[in-house]
Amino acid sequence: MHKLVLIRHGESTWNLENRFTGWTDVDLTPLGLEQAVSAGRLLKAEGYDFDLCYTSVLKRATRTLWHVLDEMDRTWLPVVHSWRLNERHYGALQGLNKADMARQYGEQQVLVWRRSYDTPPPALEADDPRWERSDRRYDTVKDGEFPRTECLKDTVARVLPFWNESMAPAIRSGQRVVVAAHGNSIRALVKYLDGISDQDIVGLNIPNGIPLIYELDDQLRPLRHYYLGDADAIARAAAAVAAQGKA
Amino acid sequence: MHKLVLIRHGESTWNLENRFTGWTDVDLTPLGLEQAVSAGRLLKAEGYDFDLCYTSVLKRATRTLWHVLDEMDRTWLPVVHSWRLNERHYGALQGLNKADMARQYGEQQVLVWRRSYDTPPPALEADDPRWERSDRRYDTVKDGEFPRTECLKDTVARVLPFWNESMAPAIRSGQRVVVAAHGNSIRALVKYLDGISDQDIVGLNIPNGIPLIYELDDQLRPLRHYYLGDADAIARAAAAVAAQGKA
Repeated sequence: MHKLVLIRHGESTWNLENRFTGWTDVDLTPLGLEQAVSAGRLLKAEGYDFDLCYTSVLKRATRTLWHVLDEMDRTWLPVVHSWRLNERHYGALQGLNKADMARQYGEQQVLVWRRSYDTPPPALEADDPRWERSDRRYDTVKDGEFPRTECLKDTVARVLPFWNESMAPAIRSGQRVVVAAHGNSIRALVKYLDGISDQDIVGLNIPNGIPLIYELDDQLRPLRHYYLGDADAIARAAAAVAAQGKA
Repeated sequence: MHKLVLIRHGESTWNLENRFTGWTDVDLTPLGLEQAVSAGRLLKAEGYDFDLCYTSVLKRATRTLWHVLDEMDRTWLPVVHSWRLNERHYGALQGLNKADMARQYGEQQVLVWRRSYDTPPPALEADDPRWERSDRRYDTVKDGEFPRTECLKDTVARVLPFWNESMAPAIRSGQRVVVAAHGNSIRALVKYLDGISDQDIVGLNIPNGIPLIYELDDQLRPLRHYYLGDADAIARAAAAVAAQGKA
């Protein structure tokens, strides 16, 4: 039996400001930092340990991982960064306020943008300064793979090759893996692992900074999954994520 | 022409307490943290950038690197940890006060232990709780390679295979490399690169938290080297290291 630990980064400055973030590289808030520290303490207290860490190329996820590793006295563990674990690209919505958009376009349209499986938000233009194509960290991304916007289906499509080629073989070989990533890259993994339908994934929210444990069999089929920590806190955190799109 | 950047970690709690540290995994002091932040700001201001980072498996070096990367907005860069970049193992002296030892054994003996090229300090016994053999981070180290004490010659002998197998090929391939390591693992590299004699290396001190730049030709022969930053501050920092063994 394998255990895979997934952690959504702690609260970011744009989570707090209720803005669509996507690939924008915003940092953690002080609360987000506390959430990351708590996640590390909890994992250590519950006896978890790791051999290999995965995270995105965005600092809110990397910093969350660093704080987790610091609390676990595991700052020396290998860390693999991949753009394929980045948050869903939010296209032309990146930087805009979720409640403003709800007032302007209606909560239903915002819910579609936020949670529809296969309808992406409006795409970024190539000359938009928010398009990160020339950022050095994306030098290895092929042109056809570099998004201007993504629906969750697109995120699943670019997360899964990385799961299949890097993460799954590592887990199968017996390595204990922790992933510090984002709401939608984690939803992509969860959808795949649990075989959640395109309809049902819409209602699934991943709270910030709470370790989500997947117990997997030898074929990496999920046996069970659960969050670590206080049940009320977990429910409140998930409800807070769900409420972000309200006007 | 290649540029290689070497950074000794910022001041550690045991640098401050004037204790022999070696492989003991002590953290940075607040000053050490500031030194790491300053190193990152300086590198950024001077236009440095990196593709690949190396550090030891000790947290004072890793944390120094993290702060450097943070200041440079490069938290997404790949980081390779290796025990071969650890500080020199200080054997049975680990944890003891340098000035106490100077009073007890004489400054000359302490200078031999600190700086002799080929005389190691007394070895740790296998049942000494300070021997880290069972620490998970050293699982891949072969028994014959795991030190109970080291002189600088021993440190050179275990640093160079890593230089030859990992660091040198990366630099030759055009990757811009930064190394956040320790006084003696950096002295080992410097001795090798500059062909410094066994006698002359004794007098060479590496200051904490000041980037040391090596310009290397295509065969990785040094063209020149220099510290980044204010000359007076560099001289004071090097003198402080040299003075640690006084009674």
